[in-house]
Amino acid sequence: MMQKEKPLMPVISEPEPSEYQNILRRPDQGGQMMQDRVREIIERVEQGGDGALRALSLEIEGLVPDRFEISRDVLLQSGTDVDDQLKVAIGRASENIRTFHRAQMPVPVSVETLPGIRCSLRYAPIERVGLYIPGGTAPLLSTVLMTVIPAKLAGCREIIACTPPGASPELLYTLGLFNIRVFSVGGAQAVAAMALGTESIPKVDKIFGPGNPWVTHAKMQLAGRGIAIDMPAGPSEVMVIADESAVPAYVAADLLSQAEHGPDSQVILLSDSMPLIESTLLELQIQIEKLPRKKTAMEALKHGMAICVSGVEKAVEMSNYYGPEHLILSVKNPNETAEKIHNAGSVFLGNYSPESAGDYASGTNHTLPTGGATRAWSGITIHSFMKSITLQELTREGLMQLAPTLLALSTAEQLDGHANAVLQRMKQNQ
Amino acid sequence: MMQKEKPLMPVISEPEPSEYQNILRRPDQGGQMMQDRVREIIERVEQGGDGALRALSLEIEGLVPDRFEISRDVLLQSGTDVDDQLKVAIGRASENIRTFHRAQMPVPVSVETLPGIRCSLRYAPIERVGLYIPGGTAPLLSTVLMTVIPAKLAGCREIIACTPPGASPELLYTLGLFNIRVFSVGGAQAVAAMALGTESIPKVDKIFGPGNPWVTHAKMQLAGRGIAIDMPAGPSEVMVIADESAVPAYVAADLLSQAEHGPDSQVILLSDSMPLIESTLLELQIQIEKLPRKKTAMEALKHGMAICVSGVEKAVEMSNYYGPEHLILSVKNPNETAEKIHNAGSVFLGNYSPESAGDYASGTNHTLPTGGATRAWSGITIHSFMKSITLQELTREGLMQLAPTLLALSTAEQLDGHANAVLQRMKQNQ
Repeated sequence: MMQKEKPLMPVISEPEPSEYQNILRRPDQGGQMMQDRVREIIERVEQGGDGALRALSLEIEGLVPDRFEISRDVLLQSGTDVDDQLKVAIGRASENIRTFHRAQMPVPVSVETLPGIRCSLRYAPIERVGLYIPGGTAPLLSTVLMTVIPAKLAGCREIIACTPPGASPELLYTLGLFNIRVFSVGGAQAVAAMALGTESIPKVDKIFGPGNPWVTHAKMQLAGRGIAIDMPAGPSEVMVIADESAVPAYVAADLLSQAEHGPDSQVILLSDSMPLIESTLLELQIQIEKLPRKKTAMEALKHGMAICVSGVEKAVEMSNYYGPEHLILSVKNPNETAEKIHNAGSVFLGNYSPESAGDYASGTNHTLPTGGATRAWSGITIHSFMKSITLQELTREGLMQLAPTLLALSTAEQLDGHANAVLQRMKQNQ
Repeated sequence: MMQKEKPLMPVISEPEPSEYQNILRRPDQGGQMMQDRVREIIERVEQGGDGALRALSLEIEGLVPDRFEISRDVLLQSGTDVDDQLKVAIGRASENIRTFHRAQMPVPVSVETLPGIRCSLRYAPIERVGLYIPGGTAPLLSTVLMTVIPAKLAGCREIIACTPPGASPELLYTLGLFNIRVFSVGGAQAVAAMALGTESIPKVDKIFGPGNPWVTHAKMQLAGRGIAIDMPAGPSEVMVIADESAVPAYVAADLLSQAEHGPDSQVILLSDSMPLIESTLLELQIQIEKLPRKKTAMEALKHGMAICVSGVEKAVEMSNYYGPEHLILSVKNPNETAEKIHNAGSVFLGNYSPESAGDYASGTNHTLPTGGATRAWSGITIHSFMKSITLQELTREGLMQLAPTLLALSTAEQLDGHANAVLQRMKQNQ
């Protein structure tokens, strides 16, 4: 089967590992100018509080809400404008997300490392968390579920959310389902406000949520100042590994569902079957015509690619090198292949697990590391909203038994005060 | 009992919550000049690689090793210069650390959120990790154990360590116990080299380990660029909550073991007993005289403090506000008190659990968040060397059941491509 027209994305054949870095390059993210502008926004919020927020909202979004906080009444009333079918869907998705995240609840640890020496580890919720809920071109009400539900399950005491002015009734309704405070502020200024605090917006301990490059730059700059963030999350990306058992129409649809997110999204198809690649490219051309976001998807596909590899093992190697946010395994034995995956945010197994399922309602979280950050970061889990605290309790006998070890090590490190803390306890017990 | 001389640290009585921010202020950390210098160091390493590292080692440490990597032979031979008793102590400490960290191994999760929809979460080791082992005034061989042991247990494939030139035989011996690569580079330039890679030093996925302000600034600046780090870890700190059941000599010794770390260490004593505070201050004066690091400890105590509070509950409230790296509970019912602690790195229970025990050998990790970062961060655990990956597998029936939810949500978010990925699969199955 041959392409009638120029394919929507380039096709590459059997690249060498030395070429991976160049081929699997990600699209550039806003340069120095945007960084400088974000730095200025953060400084203005830090120095000017609410006044600076108001000025920035006017400059950037062209509108300033009377007050930043959206009242509980407004949130609750928004439900009258929301379709019943959507309410049912939100309920169903919430249940699945709750089920899967509840199962992640970490278990405390307690062991006696030696007789009389008990070491424990327990988890505590992060007390105050701030969630960024993007508005903009697509009102991401699913992001509300993906951040608030695990925060509530973790037991966070104070949960606040910021979303750009002009939120849709659907978004307000979803926010109103939870007992949290909601503020009408968007972009880098919202992230700065939650991290640093203003008169209206309380300072939080950790910032969560995806966003556009402005939001991402703000999160990263604040991370550089010691503010905790969920993860570096930039433009969305999907990698599909497909063998001859894959269905081209499904693969094309999955690639398009990622491509429609934004012109900076990246979609990559890896396959050991050139016929599958060619059929998928044809399907892309057919299906893209019907998409309202066709233009966006076309842009994204330009820096997407289809790569023909010698076998599924080679595809897995490339995938582990790239570390995709979303990885779809449309292969004969998806579970077996998944065991070899080391770097990925969320993995979709087989022909009936489209990315859309995880984006909304299978139960997994859709806030995932991008840009290769899967090498070191996890997507949002219930752990993201907790931290661990260790404890130790030694009996007198336990300490006496450990004393020679402690004295030898503190002496070797020339920390006599550390030895003294042990010696004082030995002295009084002879 | 009255103080004969001016106390070594100020005594504050029953502060109001509105005063906490001012009273519980932490010592300042190197200002803008140091930040700019660190930024310059990172840029030089990024652009100049090994050449820049060599120049920086000469400028900053006054010596350049012939080659950065310390050979396996050198590491193994260093054992001949190490005392047998110390070797036994390192072995004992390693066993306890291994026991406690092995018990933390996370368990995979797998649940069916609805019939035909299986969601799973599994953990994978971070493949390449870089450990910073401080040299300087105290050769912290215990930091080797606290970072390498959990990295090995997690299954990290490539572990490298950097330590400043001129490492002691004890430090080299400890590094040689593990099959890892060791480089003789220190300070901000070592952190930059591991984060960005040079000709000699491989780029890693995450940076671990405590260090001086240079190292900390480098970690934070690189975190701002998306490099994963273990935590913001600055000057060390201890808070002791002591009631009348505490032993002044032990409390004083614990405060001093923290104060000797560096002039920027912070030690705070909270007690509801003024006699206990006074006796502890006297003991401080006696014990400090015998410490080789007396001068350092004196400096640190200047910005330490003893705070007299109305009861242990009040002390717990202040401790949760401050979020200490180390918290010693020298109180009658330490376990009961510990349950109310929300923000702390590691907690030491009762009269026989000095901080030294956890610093070296009880089994808990001594790499802990400081500067209030305990609000959102955990100390090093086995989790620090792993990330989680979620997976989902839907059967055809599972997807069909979820389809109305997915279609309603994707339509509400105006993401028709997401709906299309579901519709394609419905179409082919009618």
